[in-house]
Amino acid sequence: MFPNNLKKMIDCFKKLPGIGEKTAERLAFSLLDFNKEQLTIFSESIADIRDNICYCNVCGNISDSEVCTICSNSTRDDSVVLVVEKAKDILLFEKIGVFKGKYHVLNGLISPIDNIGPNDINLNSLIQRVKENNIKEVIFALKPSIEGETTLQYIKKLLHSVSGDIKVSKLATGVPIGADMEYIDSLTLELAIDERKSLN
Amino acid sequence: MFPNNLKKMIDCFKKLPGIGEKTAERLAFSLLDFNKEQLTIFSESIADIRDNICYCNVCGNISDSEVCTICSNSTRDDSVVLVVEKAKDILLFEKIGVFKGKYHVLNGLISPIDNIGPNDINLNSLIQRVKENNIKEVIFALKPSIEGETTLQYIKKLLHSVSGDIKVSKLATGVPIGADMEYIDSLTLELAIDERKSLN
Repeated sequence: MFPNNLKKMIDCFKKLPGIGEKTAERLAFSLLDFNKEQLTIFSESIADIRDNICYCNVCGNISDSEVCTICSNSTRDDSVVLVVEKAKDILLFEKIGVFKGKYHVLNGLISPIDNIGPNDINLNSLIQRVKENNIKEVIFALKPSIEGETTLQYIKKLLHSVSGDIKVSKLATGVPIGADMEYIDSLTLELAIDERKSLN
Repeated sequence: MFPNNLKKMIDCFKKLPGIGEKTAERLAFSLLDFNKEQLTIFSESIADIRDNICYCNVCGNISDSEVCTICSNSTRDDSVVLVVEKAKDILLFEKIGVFKGKYHVLNGLISPIDNIGPNDINLNSLIQRVKENNIKEVIFALKPSIEGETTLQYIKKLLHSVSGDIKVSKLATGVPIGADMEYIDSLTLELAIDERKSLN
């Protein structure tokens, strides 16, 4: 009933996360209202990502060159490294703009149940960075889960074995600003009590 | 912080309806997990839509040839035409599969407040079709709104002026199946009472 290229387009959109049949149809149809120039930009951007995206040799961030723009930025603090699970997490911190150090992207978390071990994530290059550079602190910003905690503990031990005086920290856990107390889960509340902040 | 091509990709997704900054980022990042072949298909589909989509000369449906697959399908009933606002609406009816006639896409509704008159929508070709073919019934499937009703009344008069014995109908209005009575608006309820169906 519709041209094949439109059907193909709907199939492409359906492959994106969180996009079901109806939304895929709506998105594909909306492209018909784009002008030719916009469609060219869209089409070429995808081809560009196919051809020119790689991972930063230093930190594992996505990049279009061997070393990403953050790692090659000499104004940033080399001595602090914030460890994230995915490259996308960097965006969260860069948007706030308060962190001025460097990043390291693990591209995964250690998860024995899923058969993901330390060699399956981008870990060796982090140890290498700590060995070769004067890194004073490693901050973990992994999600608070069993996998996140396992990964953190494993890397912490490894870091201490290669650098005696390195500082290892992780993001504070607690009640988020603006949250309704009613909806906070009990584990978060428990941790928030344990790590309560003295006001005296 | 991220490669330019990824930023461009996010901007492209942001132009799609209902896609905000966060979702655009998520979608753009998800493309990084696509393999090269999938990215090629995605990119080429968009270019294909740019180059090969046109409107059917007969009914105004989107098509990749001068006459769309529905209009050129000789097994369908030529004597009944279902009038819709947008090409996408055809999809709704084709999915149910009970309507075996032809369609006509207005690509808009008459709306004096928005300066859209009868000449701004795909109307002349409908009158032409009625004049030249043996069309017995025109069914309106326009949305129940002031614009839909205005358009319907205008076209109805025009149809009767060119063909004395043409049947004109519109979709039934009423309570949708599965709806919670509490949430039905009062106008719909009023119409549902007016057009109540005798069970005797």
